[in-house]
Amino acid sequence: MTGDGPTEGPSNSLWGGRFEGGMDPRMVPLNLSLDVDHRLWPEDIRGSKAWAAALGGAGVLTEEEVASIRSGLDAVAARLADGFDFRGAPDEDIHSLVERLLGEEIESLAGKLHTGRSRNDQVATDLRLWGMDACRALIARLTEVLGALLRLADRGRNVVMPGYTHLQQGQPILGAHWALSPFWPLLRDVEALERVIESAGVLPLGSGALAGCPFPVDREALAAELGFHAVTENSLDAISDRDWVLDLLYAGMRIGLHLSRIAEDLVLFGSREFGFVRLSDGFSTGSSLMPQKRNPDLAELTRGKSGRLTGNLVTLATILKGLPTGYNRDLQEDKPPVFDTVDTLRTLLPAVAGAIEGAEFVPERIRAALDPQLLATDLADYLVKRGVPFRESHEVIGTLVRISEVERIPLHELPAERYREVHPAFEADVLEVFDWERSVASRKSRGGTAPNSVEAQMERARKVLAAVQGGATERDASLG
Amino acid sequence: MTGDGPTEGPSNSLWGGRFEGGMDPRMVPLNLSLDVDHRLWPEDIRGSKAWAAALGGAGVLTEEEVASIRSGLDAVAARLADGFDFRGAPDEDIHSLVERLLGEEIESLAGKLHTGRSRNDQVATDLRLWGMDACRALIARLTEVLGALLRLADRGRNVVMPGYTHLQQGQPILGAHWALSPFWPLLRDVEALERVIESAGVLPLGSGALAGCPFPVDREALAAELGFHAVTENSLDAISDRDWVLDLLYAGMRIGLHLSRIAEDLVLFGSREFGFVRLSDGFSTGSSLMPQKRNPDLAELTRGKSGRLTGNLVTLATILKGLPTGYNRDLQEDKPPVFDTVDTLRTLLPAVAGAIEGAEFVPERIRAALDPQLLATDLADYLVKRGVPFRESHEVIGTLVRISEVERIPLHELPAERYREVHPAFEADVLEVFDWERSVASRKSRGGTAPNSVEAQMERARKVLAAVQGGATERDASLG
Amino acid sequence: MTGDGPTEGPSNSLWGGRFEGGMDPRMVPLNLSLDVDHRLWPEDIRGSKAWAAALGGAGVLTEEEVASIRSGLDAVAARLADGFDFRGAPDEDIHSLVERLLGEEIESLAGKLHTGRSRNDQVATDLRLWGMDACRALIARLTEVLGALLRLADRGRNVVMPGYTHLQQGQPILGAHWALSPFWPLLRDVEALERVIESAGVLPLGSGALAGCPFPVDREALAAELGFHAVTENSLDAISDRDWVLDLLYAGMRIGLHLSRIAEDLVLFGSREFGFVRLSDGFSTGSSLMPQKRNPDLAELTRGKSGRLTGNLVTLATILKGLPTGYNRDLQEDKPPVFDTVDTLRTLLPAVAGAIEGAEFVPERIRAALDPQLLATDLADYLVKRGVPFRESHEVIGTLVRISEVERIPLHELPAERYREVHPAFEADVLEVFDWERSVASRKSRGGTAPNSVEAQMERARKVLAAVQGGATERDASLG
Amino acid sequence: MTGDGPTEGPSNSLWGGRFEGGMDPRMVPLNLSLDVDHRLWPEDIRGSKAWAAALGGAGVLTEEEVASIRSGLDAVAARLADGFDFRGAPDEDIHSLVERLLGEEIESLAGKLHTGRSRNDQVATDLRLWGMDACRALIARLTEVLGALLRLADRGRNVVMPGYTHLQQGQPILGAHWALSPFWPLLRDVEALERVIESAGVLPLGSGALAGCPFPVDREALAAELGFHAVTENSLDAISDRDWVLDLLYAGMRIGLHLSRIAEDLVLFGSREFGFVRLSDGFSTGSSLMPQKRNPDLAELTRGKSGRLTGNLVTLATILKGLPTGYNRDLQEDKPPVFDTVDTLRTLLPAVAGAIEGAEFVPERIRAALDPQLLATDLADYLVKRGVPFRESHEVIGTLVRISEVERIPLHELPAERYREVHPAFEADVLEVFDWERSVASRKSRGGTAPNSVEAQMERARKVLAAVQGGATERDASLG
Repeated sequence: MTGDGPTEGPSNSLWGGRFEGGMDPRMVPLNLSLDVDHRLWPEDIRGSKAWAAALGGAGVLTEEEVASIRSGLDAVAARLADGFDFRGAPDEDIHSLVERLLGEEIESLAGKLHTGRSRNDQVATDLRLWGMDACRALIARLTEVLGALLRLADRGRNVVMPGYTHLQQGQPILGAHWALSPFWPLLRDVEALERVIESAGVLPLGSGALAGCPFPVDREALAAELGFHAVTENSLDAISDRDWVLDLLYAGMRIGLHLSRIAEDLVLFGSREFGFVRLSDGFSTGSSLMPQKRNPDLAELTRGKSGRLTGNLVTLATILKGLPTGYNRDLQEDKPPVFDTVDTLRTLLPAVAGAIEGAEFVPERIRAALDPQLLATDLADYLVKRGVPFRESHEVIGTLVRISEVERIPLHELPAERYREVHPAFEADVLEVFDWERSVASRKSRGGTAPNSVEAQMERARKVLAAVQGGATERDASLG
Repeated sequence: MTGDGPTEGPSNSLWGGRFEGGMDPRMVPLNLSLDVDHRLWPEDIRGSKAWAAALGGAGVLTEEEVASIRSGLDAVAARLADGFDFRGAPDEDIHSLVERLLGEEIESLAGKLHTGRSRNDQVATDLRLWGMDACRALIARLTEVLGALLRLADRGRNVVMPGYTHLQQGQPILGAHWALSPFWPLLRDVEALERVIESAGVLPLGSGALAGCPFPVDREALAAELGFHAVTENSLDAISDRDWVLDLLYAGMRIGLHLSRIAEDLVLFGSREFGFVRLSDGFSTGSSLMPQKRNPDLAELTRGKSGRLTGNLVTLATILKGLPTGYNRDLQEDKPPVFDTVDTLRTLLPAVAGAIEGAEFVPERIRAALDPQLLATDLADYLVKRGVPFRESHEVIGTLVRISEVERIPLHELPAERYREVHPAFEADVLEVFDWERSVASRKSRGGTAPNSVEAQMERARKVLAAVQGGATERDASLG
Repeated sequence: MTGDGPTEGPSNSLWGGRFEGGMDPRMVPLNLSLDVDHRLWPEDIRGSKAWAAALGGAGVLTEEEVASIRSGLDAVAARLADGFDFRGAPDEDIHSLVERLLGEEIESLAGKLHTGRSRNDQVATDLRLWGMDACRALIARLTEVLGALLRLADRGRNVVMPGYTHLQQGQPILGAHWALSPFWPLLRDVEALERVIESAGVLPLGSGALAGCPFPVDREALAAELGFHAVTENSLDAISDRDWVLDLLYAGMRIGLHLSRIAEDLVLFGSREFGFVRLSDGFSTGSSLMPQKRNPDLAELTRGKSGRLTGNLVTLATILKGLPTGYNRDLQEDKPPVFDTVDTLRTLLPAVAGAIEGAEFVPERIRAALDPQLLATDLADYLVKRGVPFRESHEVIGTLVRISEVERIPLHELPAERYREVHPAFEADVLEVFDWERSVASRKSRGGTAPNSVEAQMERARKVLAAVQGGATERDASLG
Repeated sequence: MTGDGPTEGPSNSLWGGRFEGGMDPRMVPLNLSLDVDHRLWPEDIRGSKAWAAALGGAGVLTEEEVASIRSGLDAVAARLADGFDFRGAPDEDIHSLVERLLGEEIESLAGKLHTGRSRNDQVATDLRLWGMDACRALIARLTEVLGALLRLADRGRNVVMPGYTHLQQGQPILGAHWALSPFWPLLRDVEALERVIESAGVLPLGSGALAGCPFPVDREALAAELGFHAVTENSLDAISDRDWVLDLLYAGMRIGLHLSRIAEDLVLFGSREFGFVRLSDGFSTGSSLMPQKRNPDLAELTRGKSGRLTGNLVTLATILKGLPTGYNRDLQEDKPPVFDTVDTLRTLLPAVAGAIEGAEFVPERIRAALDPQLLATDLADYLVKRGVPFRESHEVIGTLVRISEVERIPLHELPAERYREVHPAFEADVLEVFDWERSVASRKSRGGTAPNSVEAQMERARKVLAAVQGGATERDASLG
């Protein structure tokens, strides 16, 4: 369906009055949207009950009529909740279906419900109600991932591992520091979703088809009943505004990109060549041909899902581009991408949480991988602390690295005298630099990898997670 | 599913041997792909029958074994064709399901079918078979649209209408010329789909999991049996090449963009303000609130669908970006976008053809809309033919247009003397320029809007359409 | 440039120490980024001055060294501000250039500035500084458009025009209501940009290459000096987080989509067939061939720019997909899209504001276009107010519309008896419904098109604009 | 610029005639396109010379006029080729500039050149000429990469390395086989570019502004002179068709995705943990902070460039979506993405070729990485050859792999008796399976990794490359 639009054809009384022939059979499947929008039935019921009350308040319906309609809608909801076969229904969209079923409950009185309301403001309201709940559900699932990362960090408190840039070993870091690095991006995603709830929480109902409502309904009261924090200011904008849907699709894409990074790390670190992390069997799969395989399918699927999450945003952006003001039927196409993004993430996030939960550091492989060259910066800093300008230190260490490679002697096995030959500021204690724990401990600025800094980071992460969970729990209670 | 990948869990014998625990319940829904790939069953059967024969030719199976497997696969096909309930099946993907059902038919002999084959080359083969047929089906539907455009052009042979640039009236054209303008882009799309068939028609089967097949199967014979025109040259490329899928998604996007232009024209020309074209009731819909509405929903939905067609291409491009060589499970995500693009177009194209078929020019509205300023270029050409350089002519006519607007006298009502005042090359016959048919007739270069040129264009269009239909008909005969 | 990465080749002392041969000439143009990032020089200077002070605070530099470096940087800034020829500079990026020029001012002391800092945290800091200012500048330009829309609304207070859905006339609205409909989306964009400033305002400096800083710099003090409201919590995240850049590109895309809607309306309403709005000559252009043309090029270019604004977001999303943790050189590619999005909007928004400023309603054309069928909903509401259920009313009016069309008698010229024949609830006063002003006045719910509602809407719009401008002015004062 | 559109403002005589005020200063920068399109000058000259001849053939110009115009255009070309300062030119686009300069050469006769031609068909022609040459240049650069891959394959003929799926070791392959795996995708890209040349090679000139040309120019002769193989069939389509530009952007995106895979492999195999490949210093870079770093920046930048190549396609798709028939100024925005895609690839491809040229296998690291489990499939095939159904064999080997892992005894060190305990078909010769060369040699199907198959593959690759280069060389000769 949607919009001020059509139902299932000429036999349908919603808009057939002025039409002569029937709908062309080739048009029918395009016009139908019940297969996509039937899931909005709880929101359609909620919105309709509130609208009935509003019409009552406006004097359009009597108290008795309001009561009949609302209990009729409850009866409809009961039927729909009880395994209703949407595939068999002849209706073009969920709004038509609900109205038809309401007619089966309360007869012609049902025909009064749509007074002053258009499917344009109706569907916009339904989808916003759905979207706010969907965001809350995604936040709850994101917090599971956040929790899993915190626990992974806990398991990595004593693990010194290589930190990478350009996929080359850069400087040693704590395993906990690595594990927490995606915590913060996902936390930013929680905040993004909270903003989507904010932007979705503006009520369009009462905007009519485009020009507003000619009956004195109290839109602020409607908003309060339905859980919106504000009402739209311009009816034309209200019926065609899909900004919050774009925002949700964008948040979904960003989550997908963040997850793709976690996934890439798991694929890499789970490879035989790195071997830093072992995924649990429960998230690994085998091969139909190669009996030895133990594949990180979860991570790969996660990485791949970033594709559809990105595609979904592009889908809606393309739809919106160049549309004139007012409801246009193109907007019906907003639902498949937003449903897909939310469904994808609702399935994916718990699995990602589980995979992180089951991931284990493999300390012996990590320790074996540490290359003394990881401490080259520490060597440079050694000189800096002895007054050598950093640029000069950097060049000195570069020369030592080259000597080490040409002579095939690891940096930490070059004798202190060799060091001194290259620069006089080196002293006998230079070889003390080659101490992984000491190196890690030195980076104690806020946000750095020193154990104390990481403890502080974990503490902050725990607090913010608790705060989010507090909020999420409250919200979940209000979910259907 | 896919790839060398997993089946539905530990109980599944395809790859469970080396695994201890079961699959985590949170992983199961991600791992399942039967809900998406079950539609590939006919291709999986075809490919498997051919593979059995190839194993026979390679001496891996006896003639009797080949015969048993092939008739077993026929039995499986019969079961699947007969309303099989894929939702109830426990299998992770269509390949596992077919192999399981085959086991129900021929017991342990079924276990020999997967010899030398991996799901990597198997699914790549299945999808290519499906894709070639899908392209043929889309070509057939595109030719319906092409035919409808030709017939619309026929109805517009005697209609002179404004031709637009910048949505401003530019020069008069024939209605037939406008109707044919999307013919050629869609014809280019037919050619693009033919190239997709070409690029899909390279057989990957026999590439094993990644390294090739250790049994002497005759891949060229396999290709011939299955309708491929070539075999892949590198097994690593073969198992992960999705170029032809990208090509198909790209062709789908381009079709969508072309259709969005047709749709935009229909929306504009169907508006009350233009009123040039009337869509048939069968493709129009009404409003649930505004009783008078007659909305061009088909055109709007068509325009909107360009969104998902674009999004689907971006989805796969994002998936492919940065993947290392070899099969990666991310590739399983290729199917939802390609199925969606093909399904979308299979539904959309017949409706577009129908809407064009039902569209009628409204000559009286069109004639009323023609603005004499449309002939300004003809006025300039009048001077050119009298030796005035075009740049000077252009400026002269610009001045006349301004005079006409300031004095509120239409161009064709300005007396010839006014013209002569502005430039001496004007003569009394200047007002003869104001003849729509004459203007149209003057543009008789190839591809121009003169009736003769348009007739020639229609003739070429008819011929090329007949050629495509010839091909398409042949192809359709080979479709299941 | 970027990252912990390279400079212009082997002769460059920043990282040449360990390298033998020179950079391959084919690599050089890829490695250079000065042509793109030179515009970051003011931010690089600001960040470097703050870093020098921080190193002083940490005891790494003496007070005298800090003072020398800071005044040296001021001298460098003066040179760069004074028409410096970046094209002639041999440096690979702006950071290398600034450090080289600093060396020309203060010799080897310059070599101490990079202590504890990497180009990874340096460029992340520079770009955030730039981005916050860029957002402020865009907000200022958006407020110009908002102001222009308000003034356009003012000019449309007494204009009753058709309101459209599906590009079909739906219900009458005030011109002011239409003019305000894009006000609210653009206001949402202002809020989105304010959130980008928030997300950009977290300081990464002090994160080193990836593991944090080994010198006791006070990062909170650094943040305060540079105008950041917070510091990053994880150094690994800090150096590769481009979320805020994505956010900015997303906001840019959304602005582009909103502008494309305004543009589409202007193209439509500026067409000869609609003729509702006349753009000023200053934003229209002519044709090189057709002397009469007066094209809405500004609107078309605006609509077209939504393409690159969308493409720029996809560019960065594609870059980020699948990257492993840590700085990767791919991230250097973040700058072209973000610079392009900001530059595009900085040019576009003032022109859009100007075009809106110059747009004039053409009341006689608008009045002539109003179709009595626009009041069909009002007719239905007439019945509703007489107790007829809306569904029945809707069908009754549909029948009347059909009668009107078949008999070619406009709705408002059908005699009252004809109405009564169709439904007995019609009375003689039914024809009073055909009053545009009365219709508009009836939709007086909040956000509706009644004059009082629109006045209230304008009042709210004015207030919120004043608030934004207040903020923007403050911010602009802080811009360079 | 473009289209039938505007020049630089009111003082410009091309279209100023009907306009009163000047162009608004805010509009000017949007209207200018000379900064982008000036590079089309050689094509504009070529097209204009041909057009002059065509006007001569049509009797619009005398032979002398044609000769004067053509030599005038040669003089203009000489000025433009000689370091012309485009930035200082006041013209709005390259067409206006050329026409103005022509006027400086041949005075008012220049005003006759634009007869019957619009900037719509002119720019479409110029861009197609440019695009055909650009594709030829990209093909030449792709062949460099193809050649480099062939030589890399040559260096890997005797290297047995792990083949990967899911980034897990799968089966052993030849280094040459891996090196050739991207050869075929890039060859498909060559073919795609050849098709773009085909689709670009259809002449729009002679279509006028939209309706065709009223002068009897011989369009086929024009096409032949300019190197087009066909002429457009419908003038409306001709002026707004950008399909071939989309095709080029799509081909560019696909090349980018293929290069991103090569890049990902180089990053992985160049990491310390894999260590299979060493990039030459000439394509590696260091770190400003970490003196030991040797980063694969070229590969990372290559991977990152896939972002803008994807974004550029989305840009144009978004622009085209929903445009009505006819030239619209939005189309001017086609040039930035197509120029960027071509420029990006022209810079990138030679560097990628160089990096592949300089890449060296590190046989000792590769040999050390080979895990006996790579031969698990061979073990299963061992049983298959002894009559065990593959499914059973697969499970048996899975069990052995688990035993090997639990008991921490490598597969090839498990005694033959252990094998026999698990399945009686194992014999004493089972341990002979553990032979890398034998395993590789067994996969001798076409496209497989056996040395003979790889030799045949290389031979085919060499031949096809020679064929492409033959074509490319011919084409290059025709480049300016």
